[in-house]
Amino acid sequence: MADDNTVFIGRKETMAYVLAAVTLFNKDYKKVVIKARGRSISKAVDVAEITRHRFIEKAEITDIVTDTEKIDEKDSDRTVNVSSIEITMELKD
Amino acid sequence: MADDNTVFIGRKETMAYVLAAVTLFNKDYKKVVIKARGRSISKAVDVAEITRHRFIEKAEITDIVTDTEKIDEKDSDRTVNVSSIEITMELKD
Repeated sequence: MADDNTVFIGRKETMAYVLAAVTLFNKDYKKVVIKARGRSISKAVDVAEITRHRFIEKAEITDIVTDTEKIDEKDSDRTVNVSSIEITMELKD
Repeated sequence: MADDNTVFIGRKETMAYVLAAVTLFNKDYKKVVIKARGRSISKAVDVAEITRHRFIEKAEITDIVTDTEKIDEKDSDRTVNVSSIEITMELKD
């Protein structure tokens, strides 16, 4: 599955997602992608920074891409624009 | 001054910082840097996305760097780690 190596940031506490990222690296993934939208973007950056500084020191951030996604609002016909981020972390040799 | 072309994200509403970024581009700066720490990081991404999609369509995000900064806590000897982001936007030809 394409998204096996992806951590989607949601409403749990930061360390839950750090654990998810660390677990992926320990399962021998060389690349882990952290994705978030809206207010979770700050948490995504925290997850990447904590993962590389405290747990997986060989991991570095190799790419950060932001985008704007259109989300359909519940109970209305409106769509809202939401910023998103994708942080790619890879093990260096 | 080195920071002339920099927008520091704080507690104001998002559009105040979008206006600041747009104003810098309109003053003929070719490069604008958006900086934020902690929970303001999500707002920094919003500012960059709104600036390039709605106002300065020639601007593109050319670099995004995250870091961890040590901040001295007020009224204590502790330092806390805070994530930061620097988003560089440049006019394309």
